[in-house]
Amino acid sequence: MDAMNMLLERRSCRSYNPELIPQGVLDQILEAGKFAATGMGKQSPIMIAVTDKALRDRLAKLNAAIMGWDGDPFYGAPELVIVLADRSVPTYLYDGSLVMGNLMNAAYALGIGSCWIHRAKEEFDSEEGKALLKELGIEGDYEGIGHCILGYPEGPCRPAAPRKENYVYRI
Amino acid sequence: MDAMNMLLERRSCRSYNPELIPQGVLDQILEAGKFAATGMGKQSPIMIAVTDKALRDRLAKLNAAIMGWDGDPFYGAPELVIVLADRSVPTYLYDGSLVMGNLMNAAYALGIGSCWIHRAKEEFDSEEGKALLKELGIEGDYEGIGHCILGYPEGPCRPAAPRKENYVYRI
Repeated sequence: MDAMNMLLERRSCRSYNPELIPQGVLDQILEAGKFAATGMGKQSPIMIAVTDKALRDRLAKLNAAIMGWDGDPFYGAPELVIVLADRSVPTYLYDGSLVMGNLMNAAYALGIGSCWIHRAKEEFDSEEGKALLKELGIEGDYEGIGHCILGYPEGPCRPAAPRKENYVYRI
Repeated sequence: MDAMNMLLERRSCRSYNPELIPQGVLDQILEAGKFAATGMGKQSPIMIAVTDKALRDRLAKLNAAIMGWDGDPFYGAPELVIVLADRSVPTYLYDGSLVMGNLMNAAYALGIGSCWIHRAKEEFDSEEGKALLKELGIEGDYEGIGHCILGYPEGPCRPAAPRKENYVYRI
């Protein structure tokens, strides 16, 4: 796919079929995440790729509970990448966001639907979230940045809303 | 340029020649910024494209002063795009970062060097920064997210540092 087309046409996808994406495709998406820019090149983020259905469902429940809801905040997507970043690095929040951006853009380039699902901060600040990081052997002060849900889109994505008029100023 | 190549090969550029980039190329970069994902599609960021040398130099001075330095924090880049985002939108910081990511990626796809320069928050929280926004007719509670400096690279960029070993966890 052409790079500029990807940047202009990527859309958030809110409907998925339950089929997992091939591991090689997930690997390429993760690789793009690794090469996002980070402040001073410190690579403050980490990614957790979740393809295990039980964990995916546990995270969905935890995420929904933060909203006080019992639906599926992951829109039926079968898998996801959680991005967290090391709070001890001053640019961690920006760094983690750039990783999320590369994941979403790469997914689109490879024919995979994606969407940023928020509340990762609240999720991994909770006792259950902290316990999960510990289970994975992740030590350090990591803040949840976002969930990049992934899967094959069920039906076409909605077209982009018009951009606001005053997006750009020039001088 | 191929989309995946762009995501994997983009590098931050820290040496520029003083030639401005063509306006049509800047327009394409800004367009990519406009189409970054934003939380709930609220389009909380704005971009200020600065090609005016006097303002570019004024910003460089303000930015350097925050570090207590008198060099050029923009590495000689002749122009830049400042991204700010509306603090009243809960996802503003993540949204603005995704705009920055699209700007840097698009620049690379179009043969233009770029680098994220920080301290935009401190810059636009200062009285001088606030006055500048007022001069531009920008109202509202905007926080500086980053400066995307732009220009033709002077010499090749440094190759990417090796990625850290524990970037990705899988479950």
